[in-house]
Amino acid sequence: MQTSPLGFFDSGIGGLTVVRAAQALLPHEDIVYLGDTARVPYGSKSPETIRQFAAEDVQWLLGHQVKAIVVACNTATAHALPSLRETFRVPILGVIESGVQATLADREADRVGIIATRGTIRSHAYQHALAQQRTGLIIHAQPAPLLVPLIEEDWLDHPATTAALHTYLDPMVETGIDALLLACTHYPLLIPTLRKFLPDDIRLVDSATTCAEHLKSELTRLDLLNPSTEPGKLHIHLTDLSEQFEKLAKRFLARPTGKIRRAVL
Amino acid sequence: MQTSPLGFFDSGIGGLTVVRAAQALLPHEDIVYLGDTARVPYGSKSPETIRQFAAEDVQWLLGHQVKAIVVACNTATAHALPSLRETFRVPILGVIESGVQATLADREADRVGIIATRGTIRSHAYQHALAQQRTGLIIHAQPAPLLVPLIEEDWLDHPATTAALHTYLDPMVETGIDALLLACTHYPLLIPTLRKFLPDDIRLVDSATTCAEHLKSELTRLDLLNPSTEPGKLHIHLTDLSEQFEKLAKRFLARPTGKIRRAVL
Repeated sequence: MQTSPLGFFDSGIGGLTVVRAAQALLPHEDIVYLGDTARVPYGSKSPETIRQFAAEDVQWLLGHQVKAIVVACNTATAHALPSLRETFRVPILGVIESGVQATLADREADRVGIIATRGTIRSHAYQHALAQQRTGLIIHAQPAPLLVPLIEEDWLDHPATTAALHTYLDPMVETGIDALLLACTHYPLLIPTLRKFLPDDIRLVDSATTCAEHLKSELTRLDLLNPSTEPGKLHIHLTDLSEQFEKLAKRFLARPTGKIRRAVL
Repeated sequence: MQTSPLGFFDSGIGGLTVVRAAQALLPHEDIVYLGDTARVPYGSKSPETIRQFAAEDVQWLLGHQVKAIVVACNTATAHALPSLRETFRVPILGVIESGVQATLADREADRVGIIATRGTIRSHAYQHALAQQRTGLIIHAQPAPLLVPLIEEDWLDHPATTAALHTYLDPMVETGIDALLLACTHYPLLIPTLRKFLPDDIRLVDSATTCAEHLKSELTRLDLLNPSTEPGKLHIHLTDLSEQFEKLAKRFLARPTGKIRRAVL
């Protein structure tokens, strides 16, 4: 069981930022990654459809004998995590809980901004989790649907990205926030741009990194860490293959991806 | 047969601009519209996946006894029209042929720009059709993947849209074009913005309107026009329902949509 791989899934290739963070912290774990690129994005779709897709993704990963599953997608975590945990027995982690914990690690923080897809913001999953943990917290939640296509286009320093960031972030910067929670697995690629754009005293919380830390502590707690001292292997499977997805996968992972295979759900 | 409905399908709600143009020209036709919103967009996906999705869409429409089918999606037309025509016996029209004819209606035009999704541009379907019709035509084909999300966000006059248009269109305006072919069913909503942005002497060719004109002449030729004098009915079916899609559908159709139903493919 300890030598079995970890399963990660996402609507597309964004979840590879979580894989990248996990590889840095857990270098001896094998990873099977499923990206549902044939049906990407999930962020604009309905809760019922997202739950159905997520259940099919988990079922596919279980066919690969994974010891634990990471929902490396904020939208799927927001809408499907509770139902997945009810349906399946394998340990399943999402990206929300850890992001919320990391945001509130600063005990002084009383104003928090969140940017995410429309689906994640509409689910109120982050707002609910934050509000449960700290009474009186002021939460500024902003759907930012253009950021994913801008990042995928590699327009990190493009005037269109700056214009979009002004529309999304100016109102929360004006009212004042202590931290900005990047509640989409695509957003870590935008951190250098955001650092330049935002005042220095706003802390950026990246859900990919915080999720990897949470994964490490959960594997330790459940005694599921791989005792191997060999470098872990990564196998990427996508439900649709295209040159564009392969190029993006390399950018999100920040290293060569190995051979990407097609998955049939 | 003449009183049977017309079937339209698209990856999402963009195809409703074609429906809107068809309703203006063919007010007595009943229309069944299928939008595959659960798997939208098609524009970034592989040819094989697009062909599979398109065949499933046509199969669903045939279950509704349609007398002819309009592929109201440039990406699906580009990759799937020939294989759909081989597989199914019903008359099937795409959006490309008519757009190309309308572009070349100006006999002086020798430099043409095209903007579309990455999938449509990569298919070379427009470039091929244009080059076959006019020798020596200079074609400037530009993928413009940000325009669909910007239009869906209703950022028609937003600085981010202007910045994106500069990147996409400045090079072709500088080298000089006689006409710009809007090769995506979302783009008609951007016409007022483009009119302000582009020099007056560049003609805009909108594939939604030209497709509706082609549809009318084909129905006449095949003796399939509905002889009814009653206003035609429109039934919209989407594979995923959400408030966002319903709002977009109303904008693309420019009138109330009636009750939208969920389709199971």
